[in-house]
Formats: sequence, structure tokens, C-alpha cells
Amino acid sequence: MAMDEKWSKGMDVELKPGERIDMLYQDQVHIIQSKDVFSFSLDAVLLANFANPRKNGRGLTVDLGSGNGAIPLFMAHKVQGQIVGVEIQPELAEMARRSVAMNQLEDKITIKNEDMRDIFSDIRPGSADTVVSNPPYFAVDSEKTVMKEDEHYAIARHEIKADLTLVTKTANKLLKNKAHFYMVHRPDRLFEILDALRAAHLSPKKLQFVYPKPNSEANIVLIDAIKDGDGTGARILPPIITHNPDGSYRQEILDIYEGKNQDD
Amino acid sequence: MAMDEKWSKGMDVELKPGERIDMLYQDQVHIIQSKDVFSFSLDAVLLANFANPRKNGRGLTVDLGSGNGAIPLFMAHKVQGQIVGVEIQPELAEMARRSVAMNQLEDKITIKNEDMRDIFSDIRPGSADTVVSNPPYFAVDSEKTVMKEDEHYAIARHEIKADLTLVTKTANKLLKNKAHFYMVHRPDRLFEILDALRAAHLSPKKLQFVYPKPNSEANIVLIDAIKDGDGTGARILPPIITHNPDGSYRQEILDIYEGKNQDD
Repeated sequence: MAMDEKWSKGMDVELKPGERIDMLYQDQVHIIQSKDVFSFSLDAVLLANFANPRKNGRGLTVDLGSGNGAIPLFMAHKVQGQIVGVEIQPELAEMARRSVAMNQLEDKITIKNEDMRDIFSDIRPGSADTVVSNPPYFAVDSEKTVMKEDEHYAIARHEIKADLTLVTKTANKLLKNKAHFYMVHRPDRLFEILDALRAAHLSPKKLQFVYPKPNSEANIVLIDAIKDGDGTGARILPPIITHNPDGSYRQEILDIYEGKNQDD
Repeated sequence: MAMDEKWSKGMDVELKPGERIDMLYQDQVHIIQSKDVFSFSLDAVLLANFANPRKNGRGLTVDLGSGNGAIPLFMAHKVQGQIVGVEIQPELAEMARRSVAMNQLEDKITIKNEDMRDIFSDIRPGSADTVVSNPPYFAVDSEKTVMKEDEHYAIARHEIKADLTLVTKTANKLLKNKAHFYMVHRPDRLFEILDALRAAHLSPKKLQFVYPKPNSEANIVLIDAIKDGDGTGARILPPIITHNPDGSYRQEILDIYEGKNQDD
């Protein structure tokens, strides 16, 4: 698809107040963002890069908690089959759908505006080849800022509508046997994450820690777990260090944003 | 203590066939090594650097599975109290004792040639301020090379005499409430390690992954766990990368070997 055609398509899209269009992968993917409602973060970009759909993604990929559709949009180039994004917030699901249309990916990506508890009326259990999720990071009992935040951000960031238990159980129910669940989360909840995965019969196999700077503690963890795996044999993938000392992104990260690290 | 005095002391020590003396911390610590029987590895150096005895190490520190005494010797400068090294193999315990004598540390370090199951006849449960361990890494059921190795190495490297369950339970029984257990191990056993710690009522709090090169998977993990901690709030400390592309140690590691990274 020619860039011009795509961009002209992009120009037609209806933007609401506060919305902008960001571009990834050398301008081949456009995404509607809103500072007021929802913007994707580096975490979504890293997860889309980390997730490795088996069989070239020929089967079904499901994204639990899709937000503005960042992960389906960023994974589309490496998935040959269908991607379903599940998003409980109508405003975000609608924003995601407009981005899908802008990228002419309606044939590949479906955004379902549903609670993930309800998706099995549409999606058969055990039918997904890959499940990915960038879920809310903060336990609700840690409270603090929940009430100060905009409601859209609060729901995306805090475990108000979906917690680790729900996300991992839903992933397990969606996946075929031995299929993979990829998640991005915060390292400070690592032990809860591992517990939740195993309680949901998902065996963590690979962890990758992301450090803001060489001398900083990790602030992101990427997790690859297998449904009904054997529970032994952890691999800790090479460290990802995101920023230069001056605060700019390191080339490794810029390459991921530009799609140069993809195996397609 | 003057270097000359120490070194002349060192020259007096009886070396057995195959033994040599290595030096750390700008030649301030001497240690007897034997390629045939036992040599410490980078892991011991990293653990000694990582462990942070509370109250300036004024209480009791216990090293479970001391080998040739590397960790007690390398921690002596940051521990004001007593260090007890427990080593089941008589030849290694004896080698450790000669190194302790060579460093004139007999007042600070005691090497007990015992099975760690038997130490509570000497050491009161709940009396240790710090427990450290560089235990055998390989599960015995992974067998493979156990029988091909020299027996001393086999016992040091494989869970023949002590496994994760024994080491963590012993650490728990030794420690005062809220005191710390520091362990070095292999990341491929991370999930078993976390399970063993928690089964022994030790809450992992800090993990530090050690990567041989920037693009390599981690091959060492350092763990800080607290007796009867609350089980939440993991911290993943900054990555340690050990080698340059040419295979030489990075300056960060040389500094640890030279004692320049110590907080003393």
C-alpha cells in the first residue's frame, strides 16, 4: 500500500478535540492519540516487538485491554491471521476503530467493546494462538491517585475493571494448549505476576527486564508464558536499556519505533 | 595490617599439590585455590559484593556451603562481627581454614566442617543477622555430568548434599526475624528459587541479573530475601554486565575484584 494513499486516508479521519495522529514504523502505522483520554506508552511498543506469534501469526491473536488499539496496530505487520482487541471503555474502543480504519486494517483487526469477562460469547475458548496484554498495572488497594485521575486513565492504569487474576485466567481460557501469552507489566509486581500466571496454568518461560538507564532499576518487565508448560527452565533475555544519559531514547529503542528490529 | 606482614604470612602457608594462592581487593585478601579440588568463581565475588550485612555486620553472618571460604574472606572487610562458614567437605573446609589463617582472620571467621543439617548443635536458631549462600546450582535429577566430575566439584555444583529446600529452610532457621538472606544462583532455576524461598518464609525483595554481554541472556542472579517479609514489592536492581565484546572483564567487574565498589 502506497504511503500517499495511506496518508490521504489518514487525513480523512475524524479527529475529536484533543486528539492527534502519531506515526510508527517509518510512518507506516498511524494511530489516534489523546492526551486527555488515552495515549499508548513505550510499554505497548515493546510488547508488540516482544510478542512472537507462532506459525507466523496465522491463527487468532487476542489483545486483552486494547486501549486505543496500539498493540493490534503495532503487531499487524507480523500477524497473518486475525487480531481481536478487547477494550471495555467505549471511547477508547471507538478511537481504536478509527485508527484501524485509518490504516485500512479492518480486514485484520476487530475491536470489541466488551468486558473481557464477556468475550466467550464471541470467541470460542481454546481458539487463540496468541494472547497479548498490557493490563492495568496498579492494584486498586494501592489507591493513592486513582480518584485524582481522569476516569479513562484510571481504568487503564488501575485494576478497577480487570486485575491480574482476571487477565491471566482469561488468557488461559482463550489459548490453545501450549500457546503463548505475552504480557508487559511492572517489575515491582513480579512475584504477584508469577503467582497469577501459575494459578492460571500459564508457565512463565522468558522474562525480559527493561531498564531506563544502565544504572537504574528495571521499570518494565516483558513476560512470555506457555499454557500448560512444565514450569521449569526460566530464561532471562538480554537487558533492554531505553534511555541515554541525556534522557533521549537509545538507538535500540528508536529502531523498535521505526520497525527496524522486527523479524518480518 | 601491613601488606608485607600479610604476604610473608602468606608465604608460610602450606600449599598442597595443585594449589595456588589468588589475591583479591588489591592484594589485601589471599585465598588458596585448587584447580583439581575447588576454585571460587565470579559468582562468589558478586555475592560478597551484593550482600549488605545490616548494622555494619555487627551480628553473626553465616555462609552456607562455603567451599574454599571465598565468601567469608571476601566479606570480612565489611563485617564487624563473626562469620561462620559451613562446609560439608573436609578437604575444602581445611583449605578454607588455611586461607583464613593466611589472612590472620581467625578471630573473625570460623569454618565449620559440617553438614548444614547439623549446625544447630553449635548455632542457636534465630541468632544470625545475615545468611549468605552460593549453593550447588544443578538439580541432581538433571544428572548429565555428575558422575564425570571430580567428587569435590560434583558436591559443590550439584544438589547431592544440599538442595534449594535445605538451604532456604536452614537460612530461615538461622535468621533473626526481618533479617536478610543473600543468595547467588542460576536464572534458569529462578521460579524454583522463588518457590523455595517463600516455602521457607523468606520473601524475595531484590533481584539483580548478571549478563555476560549486553546482548546475552542472564547467567547469574543475585537474590536478597527477608525472613517473614510481606511478599510484595519486588525490585530489579540495575543490570550487571560482566564482559567486554573481546571477552575481558568490564571495568565494573574489575573494580569489584579490586574492592573499589565496596561501601566500606
